[in-house]
Amino acid sequence: MSSFRLSLPDLRSYGRAGLSGDVIAALVVTIMLIPQGMAYAMLAGLPPQAGLYGAILPLLLYAVLGSSPALAVGPVAVVALMTAAAAGTVAEIGTPGYQLAALWIALISGGLMLIMGLLRLGFVANFLSHPVISGFITAAGILIAMSQVRHLLGIQTTGKTLPEVIPSIIANIGALNWITLGLSVAVLVFLFWSRKGLAPLLKRLGLSAGAAGLLAKGGLFIAVLASTVTVWLFGLEAQGVRIVGEIPRGLPPLEMPAFDRDLIMLLLIPSAMIALVGYVESISIAQTLASKKRQSIDPDRELIALGAANLGAGITQAMPVTGGLSRSIVNFDAGAETRAAGAMTALMIAASLLALTPLLYFLPSATLAAIIIVAVVSLLDFRALPRAWAYSKADGAAMAATMLVTLTLGVEQGLMAGVGLSLALHLYRTSRPHVAEVGQVPGTGHFRNINRYEVVTTPEVLTLRVDESLYFPNARYLEELVQTRIAEQPEIRHLVLMFSAVNDVDASALESLEMVLAKLHASGVKLHLSEVKGPVMDRLQRTDFLLHVDGIYLTQFDAMRALAPALTQATLAMPRVEKRKPGA
Amino acid sequence: MSSFRLSLPDLRSYGRAGLSGDVIAALVVTIMLIPQGMAYAMLAGLPPQAGLYGAILPLLLYAVLGSSPALAVGPVAVVALMTAAAAGTVAEIGTPGYQLAALWIALISGGLMLIMGLLRLGFVANFLSHPVISGFITAAGILIAMSQVRHLLGIQTTGKTLPEVIPSIIANIGALNWITLGLSVAVLVFLFWSRKGLAPLLKRLGLSAGAAGLLAKGGLFIAVLASTVTVWLFGLEAQGVRIVGEIPRGLPPLEMPAFDRDLIMLLLIPSAMIALVGYVESISIAQTLASKKRQSIDPDRELIALGAANLGAGITQAMPVTGGLSRSIVNFDAGAETRAAGAMTALMIAASLLALTPLLYFLPSATLAAIIIVAVVSLLDFRALPRAWAYSKADGAAMAATMLVTLTLGVEQGLMAGVGLSLALHLYRTSRPHVAEVGQVPGTGHFRNINRYEVVTTPEVLTLRVDESLYFPNARYLEELVQTRIAEQPEIRHLVLMFSAVNDVDASALESLEMVLAKLHASGVKLHLSEVKGPVMDRLQRTDFLLHVDGIYLTQFDAMRALAPALTQATLAMPRVEKRKPGA
Repeated sequence: MSSFRLSLPDLRSYGRAGLSGDVIAALVVTIMLIPQGMAYAMLAGLPPQAGLYGAILPLLLYAVLGSSPALAVGPVAVVALMTAAAAGTVAEIGTPGYQLAALWIALISGGLMLIMGLLRLGFVANFLSHPVISGFITAAGILIAMSQVRHLLGIQTTGKTLPEVIPSIIANIGALNWITLGLSVAVLVFLFWSRKGLAPLLKRLGLSAGAAGLLAKGGLFIAVLASTVTVWLFGLEAQGVRIVGEIPRGLPPLEMPAFDRDLIMLLLIPSAMIALVGYVESISIAQTLASKKRQSIDPDRELIALGAANLGAGITQAMPVTGGLSRSIVNFDAGAETRAAGAMTALMIAASLLALTPLLYFLPSATLAAIIIVAVVSLLDFRALPRAWAYSKADGAAMAATMLVTLTLGVEQGLMAGVGLSLALHLYRTSRPHVAEVGQVPGTGHFRNINRYEVVTTPEVLTLRVDESLYFPNARYLEELVQTRIAEQPEIRHLVLMFSAVNDVDASALESLEMVLAKLHASGVKLHLSEVKGPVMDRLQRTDFLLHVDGIYLTQFDAMRALAPALTQATLAMPRVEKRKPGA
Repeated sequence: MSSFRLSLPDLRSYGRAGLSGDVIAALVVTIMLIPQGMAYAMLAGLPPQAGLYGAILPLLLYAVLGSSPALAVGPVAVVALMTAAAAGTVAEIGTPGYQLAALWIALISGGLMLIMGLLRLGFVANFLSHPVISGFITAAGILIAMSQVRHLLGIQTTGKTLPEVIPSIIANIGALNWITLGLSVAVLVFLFWSRKGLAPLLKRLGLSAGAAGLLAKGGLFIAVLASTVTVWLFGLEAQGVRIVGEIPRGLPPLEMPAFDRDLIMLLLIPSAMIALVGYVESISIAQTLASKKRQSIDPDRELIALGAANLGAGITQAMPVTGGLSRSIVNFDAGAETRAAGAMTALMIAASLLALTPLLYFLPSATLAAIIIVAVVSLLDFRALPRAWAYSKADGAAMAATMLVTLTLGVEQGLMAGVGLSLALHLYRTSRPHVAEVGQVPGTGHFRNINRYEVVTTPEVLTLRVDESLYFPNARYLEELVQTRIAEQPEIRHLVLMFSAVNDVDASALESLEMVLAKLHASGVKLHLSEVKGPVMDRLQRTDFLLHVDGIYLTQFDAMRALAPALTQATLAMPRVEKRKPGA
């Protein structure tokens, strides 16, 4: 069924250059992944180790099964938010039921990805249009940032959507912890500065441009180290600064979570959405990076690898994972040559879990919140909405609806609204297709819209070019249109339907065409078809419709040559004019 | 907003011929409508007068507001079945709650039709494709016939779907009433015979062909009269033959049913479906009859009129109504010239209610069941399924799914399955569009599929004709296809995308096209577009995509003339060959 093979990175071509590139990339990604993993676990409402565990078995499985050399799989912000939203509907945060739900979300979404990959159903992801995904990611980024405000201020808040969170922040702002706020501001300022200012500084200190660029990625590490030491030195924990606390030492446990049929049914739809969003996010990153090196990505194989990675997460107490943008870019820039970089990252995270977790005891939650906010700011794209709207009202409306519903009602509702509206607008558009009356462009055998080009026509022959497949939502439209046109212009003797843009004629449309034919014949008008495509012709030949049509022509020019020979030849001999009409 | 005017039938042009035609038509329709109305009320689970009341105010309202001179509005079988299905989900048949539900179904579906008509949303009905409607009507006909078996046999049965009804009939068949069965067989045989045999018989008795044809429609009346008299004469009621019994004398009461918010919410979806099916059935009949007289029907005005008719039903204790096939044909054949025929029918029914109801006391239910069965047999079209399947697998599958689900799970489920599958198959098809490589047809400037026609191409220029609008479900498909083709054929220097069949390019597809362009340029291949339509060009001009494209040509011939001038001219000079390739 598929030419898919399990394949480890090709070891024969794996030289020294590849190795050192992979090692450096793995090291840089690990330094980012330790704080980010813990931060996204906090965002998902899970204990910090769920994020670290998500960077071990899932990464190893992706390294074996995936197809992208640069994609950095692991916990990501949007999936963490969606996990929190889904798990929050079945259990209270912090309870064992909540953690169980998160594990089942990983297992179900992983299973769905695996099945979709094996059945080569990756195209389903296309139903999330670019504007919907883009609007969703921006709205999710805003929700994520708002959800971290409580950690920055050291207060408690409730709710998930903007109309819930903002009043809750306002109501609780009196209880803010000034030391936490000070720490937050310091970390935020440092992190934002380090994204732009650290590399030039390191270069001025004498490092090469490449080394400076890489070391600058260690800004996260510096923030973690400095804030942890500060809390420890000054005993800020006693001042109300919340800290990460105890993280279990050692590798993640390997066990299947308890089976609960009702829970699985409740989580099915949200998990499917998480799978879809995770896949779309991941494949977009992988394809962008691959195109930079003229490599290619197998979408179905990616689905299988991401599915396996999430199944791996579900059986090791980890949170759901997918390919993340920021770490993938760092991985790529640091010179990751093969998927071995991901495997090495997993080993380094495992080693950290064995040795380093006690050092993270005093890490303040505010630092993690600042890390999340800095990460999601890069996801926000507020100019996308006016851009989409300017290009097409339908795309703009779908994007606006996705954003609005996501922000006010929640992430699942937002996605559903976006996809639903995209489809509804498409159906609406095709139900009222563009139909152009065409005429011959002088000096050519080409025919274009009479409203846009200076063309030649004759009142006895009406040629309509239908710019849409004929199928049930628009079947009756053509019928009514033809009836109106024939009534308006009684001198018409021939109607030519130019089918160059008709890609399908379904059974409903066939019945409509038969009605059109009967009405035309009753009014003494002949019906001709031109430029019918192969697949459409094949289908029409299974019926007796073509036997009743008065003429079928390979080209529109042939049709006109048969119906108005003198005019056609004269127009062909005219000097070529193809200018657009003014204002059209 | 709309040019819609209230208008009574135009009285100036209303001459004597029209009047006598209308009177005769009204008389014939009334004779059919009295037994049919009572029969369909029984089918809907309502008292017999609900069917008769459905032929008074609704008909008057349609006569004032409608646009079809021949459409006979009133109770119809399929809507009666759907009403029973919907009301049965909220209350037990025979209870006041059940009757209240039926009234609200009329009010809600009437209100929805009215709103759709005022907002000119009649096109929504197109989403019920011909195969779905056809499959649904046949399946509903089978369900209706099966539901009447108990009346024919004089037994009790339960259930609404085939897997429920058939075992119930078998379980209860022992209790059958032989006298009822005898009466049923006699009426059925007479009714089936009278459809074909009564008119020739009357003609042989000396009547003119026209009069014989009309009088033959009185078969129903004869069956009602004969079976009622038989029951009365022989006291068959005492032998267990079920009869219609008391029908309240007088005009229907005019009152708004009790408001119940929860009930309305429960009935919203089923009522919307009843509105849709009722509208589609009615408009199809009206358009068919109108086209026979070269008249035309205004779909939005029809919606308003049918909506008002159903609102009228809801406030007069009547069942939901729509245009019915058999009575409309009779109305048309009997010479109904204007909508006054409908108004006269209403007055005759009202008169019958004042005078005739005691005569219907002994009318056996078995006769009504036989009338229903004879009526629905004409709805069954078993050849439609193989015909749809032969024409297109997608249409056949949608029709089969509609029938199967309707028969086994119920009418609402069947309709939803049909519409859902139609849309899903459409989206699936457009997500993997047909893309043809084209070449020049010798002797012409026309370009066709290289796999179907003997055409001329050059290895340096690849021309792909995309046979689908480019939008989000297929945005990535083209990207992958182009990548594959370019990799397979390294000698390609130019890719021409022939956009003659591309009716839309949405934002997702634009991003894909930008990716295609970037990849092509990276591989040293130039991208050209040809035959881009006006509306698509307008939209692309809002972006900077066209600035990066290497060439845009009005015609494909122009593109080839620019990219391979010698070859194009040589091919043009060749003798014209346009034969299809063997086997293609």
